[in-house]
Amino acid sequence: MDPSLNEFLSTLKFNDDGLIVAVTQSESSKKVLMQAWMSKDSIIKTIQTRQVTYFSRSRNQLWTKGETSGNTQELIRISADCDGDSLLLSVKQSGPACHTGQESCFDAGVAIERVE
Amino acid sequence: MDPSLNEFLSTLKFNDDGLIVAVTQSESSKKVLMQAWMSKDSIIKTIQTRQVTYFSRSRNQLWTKGETSGNTQELIRISADCDGDSLLLSVKQSGPACHTGQESCFDAGVAIERVE
Repeated sequence: MDPSLNEFLSTLKFNDDGLIVAVTQSESSKKVLMQAWMSKDSIIKTIQTRQVTYFSRSRNQLWTKGETSGNTQELIRISADCDGDSLLLSVKQSGPACHTGQESCFDAGVAIERVE
Repeated sequence: MDPSLNEFLSTLKFNDDGLIVAVTQSESSKKVLMQAWMSKDSIIKTIQTRQVTYFSRSRNQLWTKGETSGNTQELIRISADCDGDSLLLSVKQSGPACHTGQESCFDAGVAIERVE
């Protein structure tokens, strides 16, 4: 049985800014789409609405993914890690997750591949 | 062509503690295994040795994954995200990634599933 929202929140460790790392993965493709931050309020809103809402550090406010782009994230599952200081969100992504138009924000940056 | 190590590092944004979020995914199962932190030195060591080395915030030192457990992570690819403040590591994981014995640290914490 899933824990209640309050039980879930009580296991989490937020940083000095009241935030926790959130890693977002596509439930269908298993691609890691992006990494952002969540506050307690953004977690509550995400679970209650099933639409992923982060905390924007640059704008200092809640930020529902896709509110302007339409590229929303429907929550499938939210999992804390073993020490409760990181969250993994499994989502159904509409459109590209990255503002660059790439499926994943990690497709849009630089990368180093192993030289065999 | 891959960027040089210096080019790669120059695109990254480290926080006030000189750290950047690292998200680690199994190249074979695509599971997100863990989330930890890297410093510039840990990134250099990881790329040069191909064995993933994080920065331990609790011990305030470099921490090569598996140095005591043997459950090492061989680096396949390291990718920055679109704004350069997060890293995705694709790895070949030996044994479980989590100290609890679970494959992933996100299998070891609490989770809330969508109620259909």
